[in-house]
Amino acid sequence: MTKKRSYPYKVFSQDVDFQGNTTLMALGNMLLSTAGYNADDNGFGMKKMHEMNAAWVLTKLALEMKRFPKEYEDVHVETWVEEVGRMTTTRNFTVKDAAGEIIGAAGSHWVMIDMKTRRIKELDKLESIHDYADNVPSLIEKPIKLVSISGELVDAFKVKYNDIDVNVHANSVRYIEWITNCFPLETYREKTVRRFEINYVSETLFGENLEIFREEIAANDFRFEIRREGKIVCRARMMMENV
Amino acid sequence: MTKKRSYPYKVFSQDVDFQGNTTLMALGNMLLSTAGYNADDNGFGMKKMHEMNAAWVLTKLALEMKRFPKEYEDVHVETWVEEVGRMTTTRNFTVKDAAGEIIGAAGSHWVMIDMKTRRIKELDKLESIHDYADNVPSLIEKPIKLVSISGELVDAFKVKYNDIDVNVHANSVRYIEWITNCFPLETYREKTVRRFEINYVSETLFGENLEIFREEIAANDFRFEIRREGKIVCRARMMMENV
Repeated sequence: MTKKRSYPYKVFSQDVDFQGNTTLMALGNMLLSTAGYNADDNGFGMKKMHEMNAAWVLTKLALEMKRFPKEYEDVHVETWVEEVGRMTTTRNFTVKDAAGEIIGAAGSHWVMIDMKTRRIKELDKLESIHDYADNVPSLIEKPIKLVSISGELVDAFKVKYNDIDVNVHANSVRYIEWITNCFPLETYREKTVRRFEINYVSETLFGENLEIFREEIAANDFRFEIRREGKIVCRARMMMENV
Repeated sequence: MTKKRSYPYKVFSQDVDFQGNTTLMALGNMLLSTAGYNADDNGFGMKKMHEMNAAWVLTKLALEMKRFPKEYEDVHVETWVEEVGRMTTTRNFTVKDAAGEIIGAAGSHWVMIDMKTRRIKELDKLESIHDYADNVPSLIEKPIKLVSISGELVDAFKVKYNDIDVNVHANSVRYIEWITNCFPLETYREKTVRRFEINYVSETLFGENLEIFREEIAANDFRFEIRREGKIVCRARMMMENV
């Protein structure tokens, strides 16, 4: 039984970069909004989480785009739950344009945390979700576990007001912004992003000082680590392709 | 002849702050998207600008909210052109909630620039816009010309990839983000924003180093200047109210 459902978005001016391509940050917002809506529609979204004093936390995300939509385009994000494990659930996405052409795909892993203890809750506490696992894989390879890097320091900054979401920690999509901010415009002129993936390791709070390290471990395979006082906050990978 | 027209938006997770209130940044995005759509619908938008090798540039914006919409709310932004002068045109906005209640209002001033010379073009070059000026004022006081301040340095940073829009300069809404980032969460717990306004003085480009200065010129009347190498880039004002 597949339970795919599609949600519409429009690409606004603030969603595109200097070349008119939708940013990874804006695509991340669409994916996470889609996950939120669909979980709500299926009975295990925000409302249910509030009742349980719990929250969904994204742990891994991978995204590949065949092309990046342009300003004013209509985009449809289709989503479904693939698997529900003891601790982790997999949610997949297909991104389509107005003509129904597939222009991208994504996969994500989520855990449910207890808001009081900030620890992971087992998913058998959430009965309804199990009916939605349809074993349909994403069109792209699953998010992988990224290994640690050494890398060089490429950015350092503080977590600010606009980074913080209703869970009172930095919004998952802001990490995508921080990482994609580590390249100059030149890089985006010369290269296109073939695959982006991220592992979220620990949450970050207002006022914390973060550092980003980058290493090109093979040609066009860029790895990132965001660290707070030397401790890992997240790892990410941008696989680029020369245009 | 009034030519008001309304555009729908939804408040997504990334649009709300830690208290669940739509941020000024997200509201700025809605207003500027609305301006873009409406200019297009009326025949003097992006397409026309491309033909003329010109672009609309926002010079002043003022916004007052009675209440800040919450996550998942449907919001309608109504807009119209009030006046068309020799160089400057005034566009107003009313923000309504799903029930049609007015929850906010805004006013904005725009100039048209020549993309080659980066200088202001006279608006008589753009015949169609003159038919739309209906002399209907905004529900709030017009944006004022903000005076210079001394102030203390409260933030310093570099303009990055995600700040840059299709005009290859920092997007107008990013300035709103930078300014609202100058307060800690505590301020937003204790105060609500009664009026926000901004004067854009000069554009900023990728890699430039910006500094923000702040001065509370009277109780809860906060003034800001963003400067690049000591030169003024924009001025802003946040009038707060204790909650």
